[in-house]
Amino acid sequence: MASLAPANPDFERSVRDTFQAQRFLGLLGAQLETVEPGYVEIQLPKRPELTQHHDFFHGGATATLIDVAGGFAALSLMPADRQVLTVEFKTNLLAPGAGDALVVRGEAVRAGKTLTICQMDVYALGSDGAETLCASGLGTYMAVPRT
Amino acid sequence: MASLAPANPDFERSVRDTFQAQRFLGLLGAQLETVEPGYVEIQLPKRPELTQHHDFFHGGATATLIDVAGGFAALSLMPADRQVLTVEFKTNLLAPGAGDALVVRGEAVRAGKTLTICQMDVYALGSDGAETLCASGLGTYMAVPRT
Amino acid sequence: MASLAPANPDFERSVRDTFQAQRFLGLLGAQLETVEPGYVEIQLPKRPELTQHHDFFHGGATATLIDVAGGFAALSLMPADRQVLTVEFKTNLLAPGAGDALVVRGEAVRAGKTLTICQMDVYALGSDGAETLCASGLGTYMAVPRT
Amino acid sequence: MASLAPANPDFERSVRDTFQAQRFLGLLGAQLETVEPGYVEIQLPKRPELTQHHDFFHGGATATLIDVAGGFAALSLMPADRQVLTVEFKTNLLAPGAGDALVVRGEAVRAGKTLTICQMDVYALGSDGAETLCASGLGTYMAVPRT
Repeated sequence: MASLAPANPDFERSVRDTFQAQRFLGLLGAQLETVEPGYVEIQLPKRPELTQHHDFFHGGATATLIDVAGGFAALSLMPADRQVLTVEFKTNLLAPGAGDALVVRGEAVRAGKTLTICQMDVYALGSDGAETLCASGLGTYMAVPRT
Repeated sequence: MASLAPANPDFERSVRDTFQAQRFLGLLGAQLETVEPGYVEIQLPKRPELTQHHDFFHGGATATLIDVAGGFAALSLMPADRQVLTVEFKTNLLAPGAGDALVVRGEAVRAGKTLTICQMDVYALGSDGAETLCASGLGTYMAVPRT
Repeated sequence: MASLAPANPDFERSVRDTFQAQRFLGLLGAQLETVEPGYVEIQLPKRPELTQHHDFFHGGATATLIDVAGGFAALSLMPADRQVLTVEFKTNLLAPGAGDALVVRGEAVRAGKTLTICQMDVYALGSDGAETLCASGLGTYMAVPRT
Repeated sequence: MASLAPANPDFERSVRDTFQAQRFLGLLGAQLETVEPGYVEIQLPKRPELTQHHDFFHGGATATLIDVAGGFAALSLMPADRQVLTVEFKTNLLAPGAGDALVVRGEAVRAGKTLTICQMDVYALGSDGAETLCASGLGTYMAVPRT
C-alpha cells in the first residue's frame, strides 16, 4: 500500500500505548513488533495455555491477533484525538497454527475519515524460521473521539 | 432450528471433552453451560485480564466465544468418529462488552455431511441479570476424521 | 427485533424510491414486498437469465438480494436527510437456490447513528409454497448525507 | 502465491466452459479475461442496467464479480472430475464503483483437497486506464463431484 501519511505524527506512541493498555494482550503474551503508518506486526510466542485440543494455537488466539493487527494498522493512520473501534472482521483459518510462534501482519487497504478497512495475514513460525500462512482476515475499523 | 437429530448419541460428552481439552478456554475461564443437538451456550465471567483499554471485554475474547460456540454447536451434530475444524467465521461487534459476564449462544443453521454453518450471538450480562446483545457471528465448520 | 422507531416518518417512501432508482434491481426483476421499520422483504422470481450452470439461482443474484435487503432495512431507520451505503457483508450459501422464486428478509440487529448492522436470510420458494433456507448474511451499512 | 500446480491439465477449458454456462454472467455482460492456475481476471463493462441510484456499479454486481472470481480461481486448481461450489464469501466495498468497467482479480491463497480459500480485489477502470481499488473479498469454495 503506497504512501499512507499518518495524520498523527506521534502515531507509534498512540499504537504502543493502546496495545499496552489492553490487558487481554498481556494475558496472551502478544508482543508488538513493527508499527508503521497503516501497518503493524505482532508476534505471539507459543505457550501451552494458548492451544486447542491438538496442541496447535487456538483459533481464538489467532482471531485475536487478526482483530488487533487490523485495529492498530487503522489506528496508526488516525488523528491524535481519535481512538479505534472494531466494527467487524472475518477470520479464515487456512492451516494448523503449528510452530514456535504466530506472527500477524495487518495493513490498511483503505483509510477513510470514519472507516478504515484492513487486510491481515497470520503466519506460523517454525523452529527453522520458516513461515507458513495459517490464517487471513479482512476487517472494518471505526475512528471515534477519544473520551 | 427445529428437530436436529444428533448423529452421536453421546454428543454431549464429545462436546464437553473437547471443550475441556482446549487449554485456551481454561486460560480465559470460559464455562460450558448448555449442550443440545445443534446448540450450545457458554459463559465467560468478567476478569480484568480479559479487557481492552476501556475496561470492556476485549474483542478477541468475544471473537473466541463466537468461534467456539459455533464449533461446538456443529460438533454436537457430527458422528462419533468426527471432530470439528473452524473453516472461517465473521464477528460483528455491536455494543461494548460491558457487564459481569458474556454469554454466547451458538446454533447450527445448516448441517451437512462435511460442512456445518452456525449463527452465534453474544450477550453482555448486567449485574441485574439483563442481557444486551453485543456481538453476532456467522461461521463455517468442517467435520474431519478423528486422529 | 422489537420496537425500532423510524427516524423518518416517510421511511417507506424513502426505501421504495431508492429501490426503484437502482437499475440493477430492475435488470434482475426484484420486487420489494414488505417495508417496516428495520425490516424489508424482497422477492425475486425465477428466470433463466438468473441461473448458474445447474439451473439454480446464481450466487451473485442471491448475494445481491442479501446486500440490498440489509441496506434497505438499515435505510428504513435512518433520518430523512441520510442515504445508505454498504460497508461490507458476508454471504453463506446453505442450499441450492432451487424453486420458483427467492425471498430475502433483512432485519436490523443494531442501529447506531452512523452504522447499522443487519442480518439477512434468503429462502427458496417451491411451487407448493414451501420455503427452504438457502442463504444467510450479516452486513454493515453506513448512513451518509444525501447529496 | 508460489507454484500452484493445476490438477487438471485442461483447467482453462473447465473454467471457460463453466463461465459460459452461467447465464447470470451473460445477463451482466461479464468477460473472462485471464485464467491461470489459482488465478482469474474478469472484466465487466459499464452499462446503465448495472448501476445503483448514483450511477455507480451496483454492489450486487461487484459482489457477483467477487464470488465468481474466487470460484473460478478455485476451480482452476481442482481435478477434472470436480466442480466448484461457493461456501461463503465476504465483500468489503471500499470506494464507489465509478468508471468505464470493473475488473476483478481472484487468487487462491490456500488450496486443499476439499476447500479452497481465495482472496479477491475489484478495481474500477477509469477512461484513462487508471485502476482504483473499489472492493475486496475473502471466500471459501468447495470441490464437489461433477454430476
